[in-house]
Amino acid sequence: MNNFNNSSENKGNEGNQRIDDLQNGFFIIQNPKDFCFGIDAVLLSNFVSLKNVKRALDLGCGNGIIPILLQAKAPVNVVGLEIQESSVSLARKSVSLNNLEENITIHQGDIKEIPTILKGQKFDIVVSNPPYMNSGGGILNEKESLAIARHEVKCTLEDVIKGAAYVLNHLGRFYMIHRPSRLVDIITTLRLNKLEPKCIRFVHSYKDTEAVFVLVEASLGGKAFSKIMPPIFLYERLSSAGDTIFA
Amino acid sequence: MNNFNNSSENKGNEGNQRIDDLQNGFFIIQNPKDFCFGIDAVLLSNFVSLKNVKRALDLGCGNGIIPILLQAKAPVNVVGLEIQESSVSLARKSVSLNNLEENITIHQGDIKEIPTILKGQKFDIVVSNPPYMNSGGGILNEKESLAIARHEVKCTLEDVIKGAAYVLNHLGRFYMIHRPSRLVDIITTLRLNKLEPKCIRFVHSYKDTEAVFVLVEASLGGKAFSKIMPPIFLYERLSSAGDTIFA
Repeated sequence: MNNFNNSSENKGNEGNQRIDDLQNGFFIIQNPKDFCFGIDAVLLSNFVSLKNVKRALDLGCGNGIIPILLQAKAPVNVVGLEIQESSVSLARKSVSLNNLEENITIHQGDIKEIPTILKGQKFDIVVSNPPYMNSGGGILNEKESLAIARHEVKCTLEDVIKGAAYVLNHLGRFYMIHRPSRLVDIITTLRLNKLEPKCIRFVHSYKDTEAVFVLVEASLGGKAFSKIMPPIFLYERLSSAGDTIFA
Repeated sequence: MNNFNNSSENKGNEGNQRIDDLQNGFFIIQNPKDFCFGIDAVLLSNFVSLKNVKRALDLGCGNGIIPILLQAKAPVNVVGLEIQESSVSLARKSVSLNNLEENITIHQGDIKEIPTILKGQKFDIVVSNPPYMNSGGGILNEKESLAIARHEVKCTLEDVIKGAAYVLNHLGRFYMIHRPSRLVDIITTLRLNKLEPKCIRFVHSYKDTEAVFVLVEASLGGKAFSKIMPPIFLYERLSSAGDTIFA
């Protein structure tokens, strides 16, 4: 971790930016006072299949963590869409830091305006790690940028799914990570938008605890037939000395 | 296992009936040439909570295995509904063999005619281990009784869910076991009928294989919030000597 103090750009919050080594040949610029990526971004990137993928879209790409993690899997063309200016700025800096300008393009804009922003563009896959909390649930984060990243302030689950369905090619795949508490909303909204859930994987902290994340792959216009993959357990209870991460 | 040769009733297939010890104080009469209960009935009965339950209904009760397994958990009043005459006859014999006539009543009839068959009756919980295959899927079993038990010949998933919603008290619970491949149909049909999935549990053969069953608890008029329980693994790979059952 390094402080990222490019003095010509160092204004306001930017003095808090740091460069984190992703340990896969790439780096990410983050601001710990803002949103930093979590294990969900890593789980989602691992879950995504890039087979036969030329063009990918990340809806709500934040600081660009998923487009960059996908590059470590394959050099696909990724477009990131993000509504928050501060995140867009960070994402573009990370793209530049990693010399990925030819592969990754970051757009600023609202998911609800996809038909205008991405006019005519189609994608083989869409990925999204959207805000988990519906506006009624959870304690709204006081810091606006965190609230937008975590709560459905600027976009709902439905907005994300409608956006994905709009830009996907026929049988194109949508990949999302979300909370299991929203599973019924997720599945019903996907099917309503002709995105048929095909592959679902649950992530548990321990083998004897409830799931904390759900990973979903849905296919635009796919047939009704879902499979539930083996679960992922993040931690293993070893001894009183502490827990060991598994994933 | 004993052959069940009550000579006064022994006609046709009945010569093949046998009594199996359920190892919980109860017995079940089965005909191995017809449908015999499987691990799904045991998994479903374990999954059911009988807390605050006075009256339970089993939709498509077959040979009565679930009503009898529930008695081993608590002496609740259970009504079983089954369309096939041969199964109804077996179920009634098992009820009698276990001296459970006061607790278990078996009705013959079609789930689609519940409003007539169970007129005015309400239940705290409904359980069902319905046919898994939709009429288009799977190889239809040539033997009619097996086909009815396994395929949606006489009733569809929607018929079962509509029937459950019709007879449940407000916030009454519906418990079902089914195939994960039908998960999207199950969840969308439950919500359409105001049965909100609250608790879902997947059953895998091994910890590294896809799920083979899904257990669902839904609440009539419940709020949207689902939890995914820790998975169940049926077997553990020990050595080349073979597998050991876990559940």
